[in-house]
Amino acid sequence: MQAWKDYQEKNKDRFLEELLELLRIPSISAKSEHKADMLKCAEAVKDRLLKAGADKVEIFETEGHPVVYGEKIIDSAKPTVLVYGHYDVQPAEPLDLWKSGPFEPVIIDGKIFARGSCDDKGQFYMHVKALEILTQTGTLNNNVKFIIEGEEEVGSPNLAKFVSTHKELLKSDVILISDTALISLDTPSLDIGVRGLSYIEVEVTGPNRDLHSGVYGGAVANPITILAKMIASLHDENNHITIPGFYDDVAVATDEERKLMAQAPFDEEEYKKDLGVKELWGEKGFSTNERTGIRPTLELNGIWGGYTGEGAKTVLPSKAFAKISARLVPDQGSDKITSLLISHLEKIAPPNVTVKASLHHGGEAYMTPIDSIGYKAASKAMEATLGKAPIPVRGGGSIPICALFEKELGVKIVFLGFGLDSDNLHSPNEKFNVENFYKGIETIPYFHQYFTEMS
Amino acid sequence: MQAWKDYQEKNKDRFLEELLELLRIPSISAKSEHKADMLKCAEAVKDRLLKAGADKVEIFETEGHPVVYGEKIIDSAKPTVLVYGHYDVQPAEPLDLWKSGPFEPVIIDGKIFARGSCDDKGQFYMHVKALEILTQTGTLNNNVKFIIEGEEEVGSPNLAKFVSTHKELLKSDVILISDTALISLDTPSLDIGVRGLSYIEVEVTGPNRDLHSGVYGGAVANPITILAKMIASLHDENNHITIPGFYDDVAVATDEERKLMAQAPFDEEEYKKDLGVKELWGEKGFSTNERTGIRPTLELNGIWGGYTGEGAKTVLPSKAFAKISARLVPDQGSDKITSLLISHLEKIAPPNVTVKASLHHGGEAYMTPIDSIGYKAASKAMEATLGKAPIPVRGGGSIPICALFEKELGVKIVFLGFGLDSDNLHSPNEKFNVENFYKGIETIPYFHQYFTEMS
Repeated sequence: MQAWKDYQEKNKDRFLEELLELLRIPSISAKSEHKADMLKCAEAVKDRLLKAGADKVEIFETEGHPVVYGEKIIDSAKPTVLVYGHYDVQPAEPLDLWKSGPFEPVIIDGKIFARGSCDDKGQFYMHVKALEILTQTGTLNNNVKFIIEGEEEVGSPNLAKFVSTHKELLKSDVILISDTALISLDTPSLDIGVRGLSYIEVEVTGPNRDLHSGVYGGAVANPITILAKMIASLHDENNHITIPGFYDDVAVATDEERKLMAQAPFDEEEYKKDLGVKELWGEKGFSTNERTGIRPTLELNGIWGGYTGEGAKTVLPSKAFAKISARLVPDQGSDKITSLLISHLEKIAPPNVTVKASLHHGGEAYMTPIDSIGYKAASKAMEATLGKAPIPVRGGGSIPICALFEKELGVKIVFLGFGLDSDNLHSPNEKFNVENFYKGIETIPYFHQYFTEMS
Repeated sequence: MQAWKDYQEKNKDRFLEELLELLRIPSISAKSEHKADMLKCAEAVKDRLLKAGADKVEIFETEGHPVVYGEKIIDSAKPTVLVYGHYDVQPAEPLDLWKSGPFEPVIIDGKIFARGSCDDKGQFYMHVKALEILTQTGTLNNNVKFIIEGEEEVGSPNLAKFVSTHKELLKSDVILISDTALISLDTPSLDIGVRGLSYIEVEVTGPNRDLHSGVYGGAVANPITILAKMIASLHDENNHITIPGFYDDVAVATDEERKLMAQAPFDEEEYKKDLGVKELWGEKGFSTNERTGIRPTLELNGIWGGYTGEGAKTVLPSKAFAKISARLVPDQGSDKITSLLISHLEKIAPPNVTVKASLHHGGEAYMTPIDSIGYKAASKAMEATLGKAPIPVRGGGSIPICALFEKELGVKIVFLGFGLDSDNLHSPNEKFNVENFYKGIETIPYFHQYFTEMS
């Protein structure tokens, strides 16, 4: 629609500037020292929603970081789109690998570099600006609600309670989430699934204190060595995960689905070159896209123990730690996998050490039906602005709240992502292409239009 | 000798106070930020040697931290004892496990708690005070030289050059080192050997940047997982080290020697209870004392990679690191073992990652002959003050400079240690018993007397 295009063209510099302002707030949910920044960011989101045309915005306290809720109700008989996003971001470490400050956004070669630029401030802000376009051009023909939370990156520990106690407030006909990627603007795609998650931490204790590695070395179990042996045993020689029962509930993809997946463009040489690796790695019998899409995985997210500073220290440490997470696919249950993982680690620990393993957070996998109105509206909207119908693909990431949303609110979720896999999510130099930000803003009004027409 | 005893009794509070002052200087050689503290500590050592009666003391610059040399020459025809010690200390991390400040010494239940209290400030300072007793009582009957270095805890990288270019200055008839332990004051022992060392650091690189563990997990080799598999493979199911050639040059202890070793008192239940472990660990076929004495070992001193902060981060890291050290026994060569270790790690790395391994520092194992005059003098001196002849034992630690001293200066080394294995060397809450400090000061003058008489 020309009116949308004209309004965006006239205001696009301001749209971008507003996003940069939001990116300057270090809203790191994992770190308690950023509690004030989280509040500041929630206030900023509230302010932006009001300015964009929401007629009611409220910040709801939780036991953790607050949830921002906003709405623009034009007619309760009309369809309602609930937009979900998150204003919290991942920690920025390792800081020394950033080329610019993680919270000092810069635009280089058409890319916005900052923590949260893509995940998820830049993406949920597309919806805020789309609302502005729709209200300012007088073309909003449905109701819009926003739920922008502050704990997605720590597993949304307080959102379930909020959702279950605010079902009426969140009543809607579809949930729209922009927190995923597409293949490219030239090869648009829509995620039809996200993986579940089980994220645990394990602590291995050997002796009751750090020891001199000369005096005691060779006579007392070293917790680093033992932890390494435990980790090493979690994947077999085919990179299958060895935890008994881990694969029991995996919904095996049909040959049909695997054939469809194989049609998505994938250039292995380009992929390896981008990552700087000589050889890929993964579960035997599956392609790279399958490994990150339809198969569950187990990754070490962190490990530490002993002396890690400059120089050398001849210590046999008392403790070693690891952060380990599994990505899950339908129909694996997060609670069940967490239990299997924890009890397996406890079981394989030799009697020379003690092992404590505990849950960080988890969430269920989710699949969107491609014959739903929501998916069709998203597909048509992308075709309208990108010129091609998107390919349905399975995403590797997790949005733990999806399964809960569907269960509590009884509506389907549609993923309308404009990020790229190469956006360095959760890594140094996270970025979001300005062009993708603008294309997202351009596409979203079409989604509202088509969804309302088809409903 | 009564005069020695009287002088010590009258001055013992001051002796202790002086040591505490020395312990307040954070002379951590591994950390460049402590360069000024190292200089301050070298100056303090110089000052103490002069006050104790040395007639010449000099601080020699090196490419790293300085060496303090001191001497009291009474007659060049008389025997000369060269005392070696080190004024540098290990890093104090992990700081949160210290019950008092590592550089704020406190005395609790007769124990001096501070970094360096035993290793080695408390022990080399016994020699400074013994010199004071001998000079003040007019009973010094031999020459004494001191070489107190500042880089022992980082492998003495500059001492070899210093020794080889100052052979005349360091000319002596025996080298006396108090940087080891005895079993207890009730069961005195003398170390007859120290182990060698090969200390390396390994860096494993997977992808060229940190990745989102959902988007890339399962498709790219995780350097933590790979490093864990590499570490896990370094010990087999009998806890033998698997590096080809590692044991080739090990001088196998005779049945005779093993029988003698077995006579040293060792209470396994007490040992386990002290360390808080349910089961010991080690190379099959050897006792605990043998594992830490006559056998080489391989320990993980540190490991790190990925996100190690508070909370959770779903990252697939670019790099993982480990600090690994081997303790060596005669006739293993440190350079050879370092090469074997580095090339083995490079060899077992799969093609999905790149591995860089490099030397931190190394040193050769050393054995003292028990029929040498030096050993006999030390044994007799201990018997004079502790009432029992000491048991000869093999120590697990390393003093890398020993082999070099013998090679360059052509004299034997005697270990006259007054620490205890339970002194938490290299660990939080390092301590040195006040009684051991005093007994050391009391014993050393006898060593000088007997060594001179027997020479």
